[in-house]
Amino acid sequence: MVPLIKEILAAPPDRREVLVRGWVRTRRDMKNLVFVEIHDGSCFNGLQCACDGIPVPPGLTTGASVEIRGTLVPSPAQGQAVEIAAASITLIGEAPGEEKNGIPPYPLQKKRHTLEFLRETPHLRGRTNTIGAVTRVRGRLAFAVHRFFQDRGYHYLHTPVITGSDAEGAGAMFRVTTLDPAAPARPQGPAAKPDYREDFFGRESFLTVSGQLEAEAYAMALSRVYTFGPTFRAENSNTARHLAEFWMIEPETAFFHLADNMDLAEDFLKYCLKTILEECPGDLDFFDQRYQKGLTGGLRAAAEAAFTRLTYTEAMGELEKAAAARPGRFEFAPAWGRDLQSEHETFLTEELVRGPVIVTDYPKEIKAFYMKLNGDGKTVRAMDVLVPRLGEIIGGSEREENLAALEHRMAELGMDPDRYGWYLDLRRYGTAPHAGFGLGFERLVQYVTGMANIRDVIPYPRAAGRLY
Amino acid sequence: MVPLIKEILAAPPDRREVLVRGWVRTRRDMKNLVFVEIHDGSCFNGLQCACDGIPVPPGLTTGASVEIRGTLVPSPAQGQAVEIAAASITLIGEAPGEEKNGIPPYPLQKKRHTLEFLRETPHLRGRTNTIGAVTRVRGRLAFAVHRFFQDRGYHYLHTPVITGSDAEGAGAMFRVTTLDPAAPARPQGPAAKPDYREDFFGRESFLTVSGQLEAEAYAMALSRVYTFGPTFRAENSNTARHLAEFWMIEPETAFFHLADNMDLAEDFLKYCLKTILEECPGDLDFFDQRYQKGLTGGLRAAAEAAFTRLTYTEAMGELEKAAAARPGRFEFAPAWGRDLQSEHETFLTEELVRGPVIVTDYPKEIKAFYMKLNGDGKTVRAMDVLVPRLGEIIGGSEREENLAALEHRMAELGMDPDRYGWYLDLRRYGTAPHAGFGLGFERLVQYVTGMANIRDVIPYPRAAGRLY
Repeated sequence: MVPLIKEILAAPPDRREVLVRGWVRTRRDMKNLVFVEIHDGSCFNGLQCACDGIPVPPGLTTGASVEIRGTLVPSPAQGQAVEIAAASITLIGEAPGEEKNGIPPYPLQKKRHTLEFLRETPHLRGRTNTIGAVTRVRGRLAFAVHRFFQDRGYHYLHTPVITGSDAEGAGAMFRVTTLDPAAPARPQGPAAKPDYREDFFGRESFLTVSGQLEAEAYAMALSRVYTFGPTFRAENSNTARHLAEFWMIEPETAFFHLADNMDLAEDFLKYCLKTILEECPGDLDFFDQRYQKGLTGGLRAAAEAAFTRLTYTEAMGELEKAAAARPGRFEFAPAWGRDLQSEHETFLTEELVRGPVIVTDYPKEIKAFYMKLNGDGKTVRAMDVLVPRLGEIIGGSEREENLAALEHRMAELGMDPDRYGWYLDLRRYGTAPHAGFGLGFERLVQYVTGMANIRDVIPYPRAAGRLY
Repeated sequence: MVPLIKEILAAPPDRREVLVRGWVRTRRDMKNLVFVEIHDGSCFNGLQCACDGIPVPPGLTTGASVEIRGTLVPSPAQGQAVEIAAASITLIGEAPGEEKNGIPPYPLQKKRHTLEFLRETPHLRGRTNTIGAVTRVRGRLAFAVHRFFQDRGYHYLHTPVITGSDAEGAGAMFRVTTLDPAAPARPQGPAAKPDYREDFFGRESFLTVSGQLEAEAYAMALSRVYTFGPTFRAENSNTARHLAEFWMIEPETAFFHLADNMDLAEDFLKYCLKTILEECPGDLDFFDQRYQKGLTGGLRAAAEAAFTRLTYTEAMGELEKAAAARPGRFEFAPAWGRDLQSEHETFLTEELVRGPVIVTDYPKEIKAFYMKLNGDGKTVRAMDVLVPRLGEIIGGSEREENLAALEHRMAELGMDPDRYGWYLDLRRYGTAPHAGFGLGFERLVQYVTGMANIRDVIPYPRAAGRLY
């Protein structure tokens, strides 16, 4: 394979012959000399090619694809060690800056584009500095996720995307169907429900909102598992914080208690940060300069210091103290029993602690049915990891592994135990303490890149009314 | 974390103290001595624990979860170097072999179960030898896929699961909707089509059948990308070869021609095989003995020899020769212009070549619109990799990167160019030769494990009428 630009940039300027293929980022015409910067997506920086006394095709403009042969020489320019003294240039595909043969001009000229404009051009936006950098960081982060868990004996598990379970209130769901929407099988007149026995799976089916329960089944078989797959919410919230389709990572570990789970989450997050600090410095510098001043320093600090751990009760105490000290500082008054609001998370991470915080032991009423009840009968062994800028990035818990306790909690909540027979089986046969957590991958990419809008950290964002 | 059994089994029997947690695989009561085999899913083998003169709870039976403390000693038993001389045993969760407190007996007793029975018990089947081994191999294979591409400068890309494209005949699709199926928005009487402007995305939406076209967009930005995500087919085929939901790997490379693509596919497949031969020997031995005699030798041979490359025309010539030599040997007569049938693939891989075969340059009529036309005007630069036992495991091609040629082919096929405007843009602006392929991940897992039914190589198989 032809060498990548990141490989060429790391090589000594030893006048070796090189062949480069990529796209023109910029072209500068001087007297007798043309400088062309080529990028190929392998790293943030492009490679400068000096074309001295050789013909440079006029069609060689921003966005055009080219092949350049030349020799690798020391660069006189600042900030780069090497450049190419071009011997020949071949234009492969033009990207005309003006209408040509009825084709409109290339939409991504050198000038800056708004992120909103780029969202409407998802098939080209990977060519920009910003989305290119996001894509590289996202890809390396995903690999770091796999490496972290695989190195620790975790088995990667593909939990199902299509599910018959309705997720017990975890969020609005998309229906998956092959029924004819104009004439769904309808046994008793237009007002009756469609007959889902006629649907593809013979019953109602949906897109999953979480693989946790299935991951628990495999943790009770193979001890350590993790998922990394797409999950869905059909919520009609058109915000910079929500997607209808996003990727989630959910490790689940047998014989784990809450403290083990916190250690794992902290190690995991730090590993991800360290990986990107080490592997993508050029991309991080760009985000730091362009989108989030101080980004790199903040990530480095988070990767190194111990995460502060507070119980929910302690956190609420701090919030109440802060609210009393300055009335009106919070829009939502903090009070034991209420959920933490974004402004409360901001206070904890950016004022009180100035770094990541793990909040544990929440009131059972504001957490899911499967979380293990504490001895106090009021709180559950939940844990949320909060980070500066973003708030909650990880949510997890120890699971209720005791059959009677789980059945009791489900009855309190009016849940039908027959619909959870298989889940209760995990407590009937060889049950064991276990714990896990979920991390929304796009939120991790946002945290690492500083990108404010979640739609800019996934290649093809899906949200209400948007399906480019 | 407590050590995994695979770590303990690799340690010297130096009488160190160890703590093991896992599930009872077998229990053998001798006079004054009880042998308990514990497994934790970390490897195929369990760990033998000799309980000499210590109390062993009666509830400690197959499937129960336990914690054992003891010392690591040399094992007198054959086939294992170490065992544990147990000092104490704690029963954590029972799995009673008989009905107890109204709970039916543990369904997975020591006796063998049919794979069909296990498919109906997906939440417990990960605890069996077979599905445990499949899960380990599947997880390591997935990691090998990532490692292979990441080490070669490929960016991991999450292409969208929900799509507005109808995939141009690649297969029947699932609809994704939030419309009320009993009363979908219907502007002009019950016979009219529902009004998809009222649906979640403001238009019709489906589950993707491939991420290739989107991957092409990113290959034209970042040179080397790969996808690894779920894809869907709503085909009502209830066979051992098809799933409604399966995972696919699709690399796409800029500046690549067909021969480069073949080299990549061959290197990739060999890398996957070598990884599993090296990392999962215990699981492979089990599959070799129990499901597919000669499995390991066949994989090793495939990992080492060069794949034979034949054009479609050459392959068809060989098939016609074989058909003429023994009339009636094929159910489907081979003839230029027809697709290869399973029996033809079997002949090529198991008789003619006795190993993997790459068939290239198929008639354009039997391949997709985006494949690059050869100079003969009749064939396209397609490539299928066929392997013994399974047949086609990889399908790919060089893509038509020439705008006029692609538009011409789409017009021949009656395709609406407006619906592919973004895809044509990739040929309008900075176009470049590129190529890629797709590999169905479950077929790779089948190839490596020898499992005959595709439903046994994915944790929760989805097929028509089946949604456990």
